[in-house]
Amino acid sequence: MYDQTVPTLVRALDQLRLLLEKGEAHAGAQGWDPAVLLAMRLSPDMLPLTRQVQIATDIAKNAVGRLSRAEAPKFDDAETTFAELAARIDRAVAYIASVPAAAFDGSAARAIAVPTRTRGDLNFSGHDFLFSYVLPNVYFHATTAYALLRHAGVPLGKADFLGAVGQGGA
Amino acid sequence: MYDQTVPTLVRALDQLRLLLEKGEAHAGAQGWDPAVLLAMRLSPDMLPLTRQVQIATDIAKNAVGRLSRAEAPKFDDAETTFAELAARIDRAVAYIASVPAAAFDGSAARAIAVPTRTRGDLNFSGHDFLFSYVLPNVYFHATTAYALLRHAGVPLGKADFLGAVGQGGA
Repeated sequence: MYDQTVPTLVRALDQLRLLLEKGEAHAGAQGWDPAVLLAMRLSPDMLPLTRQVQIATDIAKNAVGRLSRAEAPKFDDAETTFAELAARIDRAVAYIASVPAAAFDGSAARAIAVPTRTRGDLNFSGHDFLFSYVLPNVYFHATTAYALLRHAGVPLGKADFLGAVGQGGA
Repeated sequence: MYDQTVPTLVRALDQLRLLLEKGEAHAGAQGWDPAVLLAMRLSPDMLPLTRQVQIATDIAKNAVGRLSRAEAPKFDDAETTFAELAARIDRAVAYIASVPAAAFDGSAARAIAVPTRTRGDLNFSGHDFLFSYVLPNVYFHATTAYALLRHAGVPLGKADFLGAVGQGGA
């Protein structure tokens, strides 16, 4: 579970950080108010860019907390700038990377309950929690951030989202 | 690897199929030409909805082929309607679900090479292929399809993307 969780989430968040860096740089080059870009939405009833980043980091760090039976750090959701969102991602990554592999022992079969506001608790095994909830959710918010930035005109490509993968080997 | 790959990809594609169903229904209710919705893009240099679906299905079925050392079926990319895209998803899911679990034995450590047009071969272990390439890529295209539909005004929520998860237990 450690190898499936930690490097995957760290990569997803690091690439999200890169997308934001490129968004901020483009806003600067265009003379846009960065706060306008951070408040953009793809639809009036979708969440703005800032919230997409806050939620992606929350799901990732909280998942690691649940799977390792620890308390993940709480973040305040007070970010109003690209720099503050980058710092939030860095804090999430630092926490995720700090959890030792042994803390994930037995987590695939462990019962995980995720409280929701409208549907009561969601109940998973650790394995199903990772594969049916955490990974799709983190990629959902990271891709929505990507789509928002692309829609706004920020020059990005899928390689920015995936990162430098496939350089290794068996 | 089977448990990490097959149910995950089947769920992602089944939910993508649901998103398209809701998109088609909304187009009908609004009196939109469905072909216009299928041709929509979030940016002029992004791919249209039809291609997002074609690519998501290709990455998923080809991944299962590579990991199980089989030849995945080739699809023609000739879909022009929602019904044809739903049929393509069904064909991909049927193939993915048809591969026996034993065909994935040893695939985590197996060398996987993915040819690209511009960057030569990407080289992965089977494990890294799944976690750094296949899953983020499939969710990337499925979420882009979701974002496109939402941007166009189709009423969808994240639960449509995730599916009915968390109903099980440890």
